[in-house]
Amino acid sequence: MRLRNNPEATTIIDNTKYVIKEASDQYFSNNNPLALEIGMGKGDFIIGMALKYPNINFIGIEKYASVLVKAIEKIEEKKLDNVLFLNEDASDLLKFFKKGTIDTIYLNFSDPWPKKRHIKRRLSYSRFLALYEELLIKDGYLKQKTDNYHLFEYSLMCYNNYGTVFEFISLNLHESKLNKDNVMSEYERKFSGLGQPIFSAHIRFKERKGVK
Amino acid sequence: MRLRNNPEATTIIDNTKYVIKEASDQYFSNNNPLALEIGMGKGDFIIGMALKYPNINFIGIEKYASVLVKAIEKIEEKKLDNVLFLNEDASDLLKFFKKGTIDTIYLNFSDPWPKKRHIKRRLSYSRFLALYEELLIKDGYLKQKTDNYHLFEYSLMCYNNYGTVFEFISLNLHESKLNKDNVMSEYERKFSGLGQPIFSAHIRFKERKGVK
Repeated sequence: MRLRNNPEATTIIDNTKYVIKEASDQYFSNNNPLALEIGMGKGDFIIGMALKYPNINFIGIEKYASVLVKAIEKIEEKKLDNVLFLNEDASDLLKFFKKGTIDTIYLNFSDPWPKKRHIKRRLSYSRFLALYEELLIKDGYLKQKTDNYHLFEYSLMCYNNYGTVFEFISLNLHESKLNKDNVMSEYERKFSGLGQPIFSAHIRFKERKGVK
Repeated sequence: MRLRNNPEATTIIDNTKYVIKEASDQYFSNNNPLALEIGMGKGDFIIGMALKYPNINFIGIEKYASVLVKAIEKIEEKKLDNVLFLNEDASDLLKFFKKGTIDTIYLNFSDPWPKKRHIKRRLSYSRFLALYEELLIKDGYLKQKTDNYHLFEYSLMCYNNYGTVFEFISLNLHESKLNKDNVMSEYERKFSGLGQPIFSAHIRFKERKGVK
């Protein structure tokens, strides 16, 4: 489900080299580790990460074309070669990435979908966890940040009930030891600026047969 | 490890019928479900629970005699017959309770033991989880409340990685649906009065062989 109701956005997306146009086995010219951000928004986090970690390749997924163009505007200025974008829905990721090939998946300030009838859209819903488990390498990580305590409660329940290993949990990331390496998203800057604590979880999936 | 450095407290404890003096198979005159609060402090929670649930038997564990006497003063006025206290350390509980006999264990506003060298004293440390697992009936619950986010982060990690099932997680208990049944401890009243969110977890241990 690509959402391209904005013809101007469509033109920008079609004309930039930073957006993946079709599925491939090799999106970058090297074999560096690959990280995905699902729902990257305007791109502050993924561009910041790409600048900070030149030896990791990053792909930002954003289904809303009108939001993606904001990230494209930022990246065109930076001329980075370790970051690309994908204008697709998370559900379609297996069309673009082979199983067991992603080092880290980031979920930053995902839509909390607060209504009960929309639970299945939350990016920590079990169907998505099964997808992440397929995409990640054996020791790959799912790393989440959010300001929304209902989403975080729900996510912790999902991670536990699915059967994952908790490697790091913070209920106030900006006061934790790991914060020195933290790259902020645009939402994170806004919400932490309002004094709200930022919640974070780093989890791993348990060992599976057949995944290297 | 009973801490009775206060002779006056010792006298009060020795002379009340509300403190268990020795191990027994039957602390109450009926077979109602049994719940423990480990570290009950001055007793507001456990006395409130005993008043609210007359068909459940409650035993409050408090190792500090000088704190326990505050709870004794409160209970002597109420004349409840479904609550008793035990002036012992949590580590010694298997001397007082048979395996697989406790319905619910409550940990309310436990000492966070913030220093790394004291981790093993935290009541969510794996050694204690193993103890709770032994004490609880098959479908028994461990229910925790705290205002301390470091302790709650640590506890969530311990619970998940020990292999328990999360049944309920709240990062703001007083705004959650379950709050209508919440009985506050004295710390809870103090900290929530200061505007701090109250964290809560209800977990179950996975099914074990040989436990009914």
